[in-house]
Amino acid sequence: MTSAVLLQPRSGSTLTERLARSAVATEGAGIATSDVPDWLAAERLACRTRVRQIPFADLDGWSFRAGSGNLRHRSGRFFTVEGLHVVRPDVGMEWQQPIIVQTEIGILGILAKEFDGTLHFLMQAKVEPGNPNLVQLSPTVQATRSNYTKAHGGTAVKYLEHFLDPPPGGVLTDVLQSEHGAWFYRKRNRNMIVEITGEVPADERFRWLTLGQLGRLLQQDNVVNMDSRTVLASAPLAYPEHGAIRSDADVASWFTGQRASHEVRAHRIPLAQVAGWCRDEHRIYRPDQRYFRVLAVAVEGANREVSSWSQPLIEPVAPGVVGFAYRTFAGVPHVLVHARVEGGFLDTVELAPTVQCVPANYTQASAAQRPPFLDLMLEAPPERVRYAATHSEEGGRFRNAESRYLVVATDEAATPTEAPPGYHWVTPGQLSWLAGHSRYVNVQARTLLAILQTRAAEIGQDSWVGHAAGRYPAART
Amino acid sequence: MTSAVLLQPRSGSTLTERLARSAVATEGAGIATSDVPDWLAAERLACRTRVRQIPFADLDGWSFRAGSGNLRHRSGRFFTVEGLHVVRPDVGMEWQQPIIVQTEIGILGILAKEFDGTLHFLMQAKVEPGNPNLVQLSPTVQATRSNYTKAHGGTAVKYLEHFLDPPPGGVLTDVLQSEHGAWFYRKRNRNMIVEITGEVPADERFRWLTLGQLGRLLQQDNVVNMDSRTVLASAPLAYPEHGAIRSDADVASWFTGQRASHEVRAHRIPLAQVAGWCRDEHRIYRPDQRYFRVLAVAVEGANREVSSWSQPLIEPVAPGVVGFAYRTFAGVPHVLVHARVEGGFLDTVELAPTVQCVPANYTQASAAQRPPFLDLMLEAPPERVRYAATHSEEGGRFRNAESRYLVVATDEAATPTEAPPGYHWVTPGQLSWLAGHSRYVNVQARTLLAILQTRAAEIGQDSWVGHAAGRYPAART
Repeated sequence: MTSAVLLQPRSGSTLTERLARSAVATEGAGIATSDVPDWLAAERLACRTRVRQIPFADLDGWSFRAGSGNLRHRSGRFFTVEGLHVVRPDVGMEWQQPIIVQTEIGILGILAKEFDGTLHFLMQAKVEPGNPNLVQLSPTVQATRSNYTKAHGGTAVKYLEHFLDPPPGGVLTDVLQSEHGAWFYRKRNRNMIVEITGEVPADERFRWLTLGQLGRLLQQDNVVNMDSRTVLASAPLAYPEHGAIRSDADVASWFTGQRASHEVRAHRIPLAQVAGWCRDEHRIYRPDQRYFRVLAVAVEGANREVSSWSQPLIEPVAPGVVGFAYRTFAGVPHVLVHARVEGGFLDTVELAPTVQCVPANYTQASAAQRPPFLDLMLEAPPERVRYAATHSEEGGRFRNAESRYLVVATDEAATPTEAPPGYHWVTPGQLSWLAGHSRYVNVQARTLLAILQTRAAEIGQDSWVGHAAGRYPAART
Repeated sequence: MTSAVLLQPRSGSTLTERLARSAVATEGAGIATSDVPDWLAAERLACRTRVRQIPFADLDGWSFRAGSGNLRHRSGRFFTVEGLHVVRPDVGMEWQQPIIVQTEIGILGILAKEFDGTLHFLMQAKVEPGNPNLVQLSPTVQATRSNYTKAHGGTAVKYLEHFLDPPPGGVLTDVLQSEHGAWFYRKRNRNMIVEITGEVPADERFRWLTLGQLGRLLQQDNVVNMDSRTVLASAPLAYPEHGAIRSDADVASWFTGQRASHEVRAHRIPLAQVAGWCRDEHRIYRPDQRYFRVLAVAVEGANREVSSWSQPLIEPVAPGVVGFAYRTFAGVPHVLVHARVEGGFLDTVELAPTVQCVPANYTQASAAQRPPFLDLMLEAPPERVRYAATHSEEGGRFRNAESRYLVVATDEAATPTEAPPGYHWVTPGQLSWLAGHSRYVNVQARTLLAILQTRAAEIGQDSWVGHAAGRYPAART
């Protein structure tokens, strides 16, 4: 019954040490950190891409289906814009909204390789039509199934083969993660990091960077794209934590209780039937100017998989604020997570940042209706801001979807040790542990986690102060 | 920013040691293991419960809704029987079937307490109308929300308060687990073990048992009910494994790939429209006598939450076979899991046993259509059977839903190291790790895992041989 098979260790401290070593390396074997913005600017110029808003009628291959009014591509692929009806019986709320439906699972994959004993990650300068600055650092591979089965009629996806058939022992992480539950219906992507040992032919639009370099670049606005951030959040980093306010079992139990206590009934409806939204030649929008609009763009001359195309995008009405309240307890860093319902989640709640909202949606709101802790983020004195930068969400589906991402040090008065219902203090290590599995940590919290991951050694140290590049509101509105 | 807060260890080896100690204790501080069957027999007599099949028309409070034909209770609570239409575009299959819809999340909770330094678990002798032998060992608490908010109009659920508001540090496990995806639409229950330190008033229908005692009782047919088995499978046991064929990261990656590669579209349809099924006064069934039937029972004189009631149940047409192929590699035990699609799963696949089927459904099938590895289970020579016993599924929804559960030692010829597509070798420790999170391990695999968990010290040892109580077919058909 016993075979001569070489066993693998189930998991190793070697990998976490190697990731930690990469996180403290603020320069690497390739491009200098300070040269990355110039390289991206050069790519921006070189790609000669132009994105302009067009009327829906000018979309090529996309149309509103007779009857349902759903917006779809004639191939039936890519994604559709449909309607969603969400009912929350436990809190007596319901609403309808447009939603992107994209059932196929994409791959967000970063290739890793050691140079001079330090792990580097292969990042791509990628054009996405919705990015406010067009070109950002993306994962090595960022591909929907339509991409790599070539529904675009485009060119092959570079480096894809490493993710479709990874070598045994080469996978550092591989987990299905949810994306924006307010804009996507049950979307998930495969977040992968795969290490290779052999030579990889370098491509001109790719650069090898350490985690530490990525951490430095995350201090800047709109450099590291959302897909990169969520993959980095999934990396199995270890944190030097000698304990936590609550054990892992208690955190898991609180989460299970939150998931069990919310009832969310969401079902798709025809886009034409969505109440409270209007459509004109250029936009699907709310007359009260809240939330977001659906619009169409034409993309010309890009160096993407195909050279020109048109597509719908979602554009939020105003910039968001996304932040963690941060405290140390007995010297151990903790962040305050929120068990948040989003209509598009597959399963009720996921862990979100302390604050995640678009303040402009609440200008008319009474104080009681304003999201908890929002003012803590908006009015944080500079010396309490541990992190602040503006990042945009995925530029392939969202246009100028920028949020100010913050980590703000708080105190017992503002954010008590005994967190209010629906909130819980967790350590970065606990958040990272949960992000190793599906549907625990939402995409906004994963952006903040990526920031913690790439600076793991500094969090909680005196050196981790005020890397704030500026204060809210974000530079670009 | 730093408060004087006492931190907890994130997780501790103490708990796994205490669970391991309980698993080797084949006798405990309470009832002798050998006395448990007599106690259950006495309870069976004392409860004076009679279950008889009745026509649907005699159901009290249940009726087929005009139009949809859905079977529901007039209160709108408990559960409904509706239709499900499942489409699997990736394999060109589709089917329709009746399905139980039960959106509310129940609690399956076992109370734990140390006696003489050993963890004991409070088990209940519980009447369930679908159990072939009426009374089995259930968790301390086995309650739907309808139960404990008293939609039954019944008595309060004993010990429930420990699970609704567990003490910090007292939760040993708390995870939402799926149930039968072939019979339930996206059902999940909260699987909890909560340890208490104070005195607990003993109730006559409850006994404290060690994990080792439960392991011994799991060798017997129909003693430990499904709800107990799934909770025991969720316990965070450690295994003395010095490695595995594939690392945890590789196992997770394989699972992610399996989940990503299957497309399952399941939507509810009116029961009256389900193709291929018929309804008469007594049953909803298939004319070809495959799969299962829906029927109604009246329960009289029970000591359950209410003394008499009637309800629908699902009854499989024949006993099932559920088994793990088992091998050791370099001395480390492994079982062969199958990434299995079930129409009622929330998310495509979960890890199932090597074999999970009702052989009677395949009597007309060609050799190619028979489930892989089935004959390995049916024709296993006695010396290869590491485990065999008959267990029934949840008696509150399923009637006489018995399967022969097996662990069969196999070899390279029958089950190669390089598993076929859709199958993977994992260690008991890896399976236990995954069962600590939602939707990785299906309920049948969790029954087999419970058997491994309660005998963790013996698996792979020479002592772990032939506890087979008999061979297939199960005694009761």
